Amino acid sequence: MEFYTQTLQNLIAEFERLPGIGRKTAERLAYYILRASKDEAMKLAYAIRDVKKNVKNCRICFNISETDLCSVCLDPLRDESVICVVEQPKDLYAIERTGSYKGRYHVLMGAFAPLEGIAPEDLTINGLLERIRQQFQSGRPAQEIILATNPNFEGDGTALFLMEKLKADFPGLKITRIARGIPSGSNLEHVSKTIVTDALEGRRLLEG
Amino acid sequence: MEFYTQTLQNLIAEFERLPGIGRKTAERLAYYILRASKDEAMKLAYAIRDVKKNVKNCRICFNISETDLCSVCLDPLRDESVICVVEQPKDLYAIERTGSYKGRYHVLMGAFAPLEGIAPEDLTINGLLERIRQQFQSGRPAQEIILATNPNFEGDGTALFLMEKLKADFPGLKITRIARGIPSGSNLEHVSKTIVTDALEGRRLLEG
Repeated sequence: MEFYTQTLQNLIAEFERLPGIGRKTAERLAYYILRASKDEAMKLAYAIRDVKKNVKNCRICFNISETDLCSVCLDPLRDESVICVVEQPKDLYAIERTGSYKGRYHVLMGAFAPLEGIAPEDLTINGLLERIRQQFQSGRPAQEIILATNPNFEGDGTALFLMEKLKADFPGLKITRIARGIPSGSNLEHVSKTIVTDALEGRRLLEG
Repeated sequence: MEFYTQTLQNLIAEFERLPGIGRKTAERLAYYILRASKDEAMKLAYAIRDVKKNVKNCRICFNISETDLCSVCLDPLRDESVICVVEQPKDLYAIERTGSYKGRYHVLMGAFAPLEGIAPEDLTINGLLERIRQQFQSGRPAQEIILATNPNFEGDGTALFLMEKLKADFPGLKITRIARGIPSGSNLEHVSKTIVTDALEGRRLLEG
């Protein structure tokens, strides 16, 4: 390490701070930057700067956007009576990719994680409540809130908290949770018993 | 992909250009940058800029340096009668880490790779020849050139080329090649036959 120059050591340390990047990979990346042309290397530096400069959160749903409102909120064809609540913008993309959802979103920017110090007030829950309230007042009320936080400890806790909150503030509002079950393409033999239990409990009537 | 904003797509593309970084990792890194504080993110951008601005090659040996001469060339205790020729600065570090070498270096900045279009003139071979010539003229001649290019196709080819060149230009100069054999800690059973062959051919007399 001490053979590297100071700025190179610094770049290695910065790469190492990225998630999933260890010492060896950080050295390899720094070495690539060292050998790349100045133009090539600076493209990455500028791309980082531009993201921090241009990308912000949508004023309504907190999806990432380069404008005041994101592309979903700006789309007049999206049904504003259904709001799908997700943890992160990447969850929103996961749903958008399916092409099967035509409502709006609300991005919480995380989930409760007491051990990591993420509490309800760190999420955009107040924004969600305020938004539903405003829609009610303006005569375009939300009909359904889909809680699409991840089906894990943090996501379930967040969904539970939100459900209580929404039930108290907006009695009568339909609140749903995305289905848990056996993932399409897998089989009962190979999934965990938690998943099989979820699939049994969530069974749907086909006939009769 | 089309759900990402333009600058975010751009950052993902830039991360993806780094060696060993695929699409998924690039997305994860871009996402980290997106969520990091501006200060944190810009530290990486500045570190890249600083490396491209400050780090250059040593005037004598082409090792990376932030000054005109690198720390090895500036060190009066390093024996300038022995020059160890390596492909890359990282090979130099690999040798420095051992602490067992007290001579100087010459960094070729690569090895021949005809398929990748790297020819002898792309390396710092002329710098090496000129340096040896100047040392001879100034009465501090090099006694030994250690060819420490990698023991693979490209490195062996480069070493062979250098040996011919040095033999022609400086008759009588001692030219050595680093040893190939079985790596310490491994065993004959598990290394390839090429390695065993190398070890046999390079056998050293212990007694008699």
